[in-house]
Amino acid sequence: MGEFTHFNNRGEAVMVDVSEKKQTVREAIAAGTITMSRACFLKLAEGGMGKGDVLGVARIAGIMGAKKTSELIPLCHVLNLSKVELEFFLLEQECAVKAVCTVRTVGKTGVEMEALTGVSTALLTIYDMCKAVDKSMEIGNICLEKKTGGKSGIYQRQMESGEQ
Amino acid sequence: MGEFTHFNNRGEAVMVDVSEKKQTVREAIAAGTITMSRACFLKLAEGGMGKGDVLGVARIAGIMGAKKTSELIPLCHVLNLSKVELEFFLLEQECAVKAVCTVRTVGKTGVEMEALTGVSTALLTIYDMCKAVDKSMEIGNICLEKKTGGKSGIYQRQMESGEQ
Amino acid sequence: MGEFTHFNNRGEAVMVDVSEKKQTVREAIAAGTITMSRACFLKLAEGGMGKGDVLGVARIAGIMGAKKTSELIPLCHVLNLSKVELEFFLLEQECAVKAVCTVRTVGKTGVEMEALTGVSTALLTIYDMCKAVDKSMEIGNICLEKKTGGKSGIYQRQMESGEQ
Amino acid sequence: MGEFTHFNNRGEAVMVDVSEKKQTVREAIAAGTITMSRACFLKLAEGGMGKGDVLGVARIAGIMGAKKTSELIPLCHVLNLSKVELEFFLLEQECAVKAVCTVRTVGKTGVEMEALTGVSTALLTIYDMCKAVDKSMEIGNICLEKKTGGKSGIYQRQMESGEQ
Amino acid sequence: MGEFTHFNNRGEAVMVDVSEKKQTVREAIAAGTITMSRACFLKLAEGGMGKGDVLGVARIAGIMGAKKTSELIPLCHVLNLSKVELEFFLLEQECAVKAVCTVRTVGKTGVEMEALTGVSTALLTIYDMCKAVDKSMEIGNICLEKKTGGKSGIYQRQMESGEQ
Amino acid sequence: MGEFTHFNNRGEAVMVDVSEKKQTVREAIAAGTITMSRACFLKLAEGGMGKGDVLGVARIAGIMGAKKTSELIPLCHVLNLSKVELEFFLLEQECAVKAVCTVRTVGKTGVEMEALTGVSTALLTIYDMCKAVDKSMEIGNICLEKKTGGKSGIYQRQMESGEQ
Repeated sequence: MGEFTHFNNRGEAVMVDVSEKKQTVREAIAAGTITMSRACFLKLAEGGMGKGDVLGVARIAGIMGAKKTSELIPLCHVLNLSKVELEFFLLEQECAVKAVCTVRTVGKTGVEMEALTGVSTALLTIYDMCKAVDKSMEIGNICLEKKTGGKSGIYQRQMESGEQ
Repeated sequence: MGEFTHFNNRGEAVMVDVSEKKQTVREAIAAGTITMSRACFLKLAEGGMGKGDVLGVARIAGIMGAKKTSELIPLCHVLNLSKVELEFFLLEQECAVKAVCTVRTVGKTGVEMEALTGVSTALLTIYDMCKAVDKSMEIGNICLEKKTGGKSGIYQRQMESGEQ
Repeated sequence: MGEFTHFNNRGEAVMVDVSEKKQTVREAIAAGTITMSRACFLKLAEGGMGKGDVLGVARIAGIMGAKKTSELIPLCHVLNLSKVELEFFLLEQECAVKAVCTVRTVGKTGVEMEALTGVSTALLTIYDMCKAVDKSMEIGNICLEKKTGGKSGIYQRQMESGEQ
Repeated sequence: MGEFTHFNNRGEAVMVDVSEKKQTVREAIAAGTITMSRACFLKLAEGGMGKGDVLGVARIAGIMGAKKTSELIPLCHVLNLSKVELEFFLLEQECAVKAVCTVRTVGKTGVEMEALTGVSTALLTIYDMCKAVDKSMEIGNICLEKKTGGKSGIYQRQMESGEQ
Repeated sequence: MGEFTHFNNRGEAVMVDVSEKKQTVREAIAAGTITMSRACFLKLAEGGMGKGDVLGVARIAGIMGAKKTSELIPLCHVLNLSKVELEFFLLEQECAVKAVCTVRTVGKTGVEMEALTGVSTALLTIYDMCKAVDKSMEIGNICLEKKTGGKSGIYQRQMESGEQ
Repeated sequence: MGEFTHFNNRGEAVMVDVSEKKQTVREAIAAGTITMSRACFLKLAEGGMGKGDVLGVARIAGIMGAKKTSELIPLCHVLNLSKVELEFFLLEQECAVKAVCTVRTVGKTGVEMEALTGVSTALLTIYDMCKAVDKSMEIGNICLEKKTGGKSGIYQRQMESGEQ
């Protein structure tokens, strides 16, 4: 098992040295959901029909949020992202929106945090735009789905039984 | 039931006019959790004992994140927060950390988004600092616990049965 | 005629003291246009029909840009904007998009720069999203249309003959 | 004729993938003007003589603005600019200031937006510093003058007859 | 003697609650110096004569830096500064530049940190612009000179004997 | 002796062209101190024992500050830092804390300003957290200790006699 890498041997936080690491293509895919009341979900789903495009705004927020990752997460390296994409899926049965964020870079560190930050910012923006209708919404299931590139190689999240 | 308030009557996104709203004391409390493997949880719990204070870093990130809310959430008003506090609870049985963020302001709009952004940023920072040990961590249960002040008055989240 | 107010009597730039000014409701409306080839204009106009909503993205960029004014314009005071709205008008004959930004605050200084920055950011975003089709687009006619509130009172731009 | 490149095939905004593009030297030159009353223009022109250096402040704002492009324009990639220069020309007959911004990078995407944002920020700053004297100033003629590097090669703006 | 106010009774960092504090006019004056070689000092002093205005650039950087204080200092409250002024004094004998930053606000907390951040940013900018000539420059004597307003009242730094 | 490099031959500020410079590993180490009353120093020193970790917060602030250098210093290039580390030394006799910041990158320009900004931000944060106990603290001795990489080669600060 690995060790926490963001501390030096005195237990002090440090932005670790990646000078010697290779520049490779790295990709990460993260996902998460926001669950809401049926009434709120139906209103949001209508948005695509010209009544107010919640997901269009959340998509822009998520992309811009991914670019801000190194300002938000103290020990993250600054990375020049070469791609950010956000997809949304309406989960009708659960009255939920699933956000999936794909980030790519050519760099020395992975982009897991950028994909996770993109997802989180998009879901928070949905919350903001829907909160006048439903304050009890819940954001959850935020996790790394997949990661490629870099020394640690491929990571693929195990699907839980019954998971979508 | 309310309507989405972030769109005008043409369905276009707008930062709504709050000029005429009263300045009152407003508070919001949001919470969320990050669940991890037992091995990772034990390492994190040790941190308080001088081996690398993950939660200390996450607390600062969460406070600074709450102050950045209006930069992240497109239609949020800029607010001068008068208090931000982040508490962490180690949930040993679930191998999870619960983050609770309390935000207060004297202003014209509520601080729900600031509390939720504080929680999210703190949890993402924990993910970042622990991901060398466990990449399968999951962030969830992010929700508004309570809100006071403003015209819409008090909101208190219903405790689900079995919830902590 | 007035004097430049952003310099002290030694000719040095200064963020002027507004401590003693009154908090009043202030509003500013600014406008500007981007002119493009007919082919580009038609593509953009189609966007509303689901093929890529250029103006939806530009609206969000303009609102967020207005909130960033004091970071961009060195001697601008930080203001908590209470409203930002961006409207777009398709000028078919000129193959142009007109952007109009309305900003309101309750504060000690006017919001002219915020409205102008909102317009500029929105138009730059349109340029960015259309530049693969037409690089010869031109941004122009950026000006203050109207301003109310504050000691200097109402300003209303004189309509030029033949102006829309 | 090209297509809008900032949307995927579902018409959703995306920060497009440039992972596979080559790093080459890229340069862009953008220009724009601000036109003002004669009285205001004369005051500004005097500034160089120690009475308040409007253009010195605008130059710094423009350079810093160019560096902020990817924060302002939602789908712009983050680029490490290797050069930013801002020149101003006093157009006495028109009572206008022309700003020209040259940006260079070694990267995977062009720097048109950075040059245009540098020009816009500089002109907005001039507006801010002169608005106590003249509120009817107009910003215009913002366009890309030239661009080199990258797959699409050289772009050179056609001089209109009678244009400076 | 007081206690550290940025920790709660569990020793955790917190942005302290100022909701109940009164809005009063608050001012702070901070100062600091940068000392350099005589050759470098003479070059810098010439700058006012059109050869490159180091202090003009540093003044803008200091003003903008003061506005960014709450982004840099984790537990600082966001404040809408109502005045920022930076003065420079050439100390010929010491081959030093003294920077003095005056900040004012009408708010619930003092502006000591804003004045100190303005001074620091201005001095760092001088370092940046002169470092090709002298890398051994030293920044020092950064301290709070005076503070008025707020419950703790007036603070005036004791002049040390022999101090300027 | 060198010349100021941040001005063109008209004496205008410019972000200089580094397109043709080589990417090499570059490192810079900067240091500085904050001196305080004995009472304040003792309280701060206790912090490590669970009563409020001033240095832990200052470390995070310094690391994040170093990443923000190009936003604060007008003519600094944006650099993707590959390492940032902050160490603190308690100087008991002087009642001072010495901060040392080490920054590394693989890039076209040096990281002196990043190391100096990291030190300054850390020391300002210590001031902020201790100012309720002692307002007369002084920040000083901020200088570049060492720099390697790049065309200008190694710089090593001369130790003054009696210096630590």
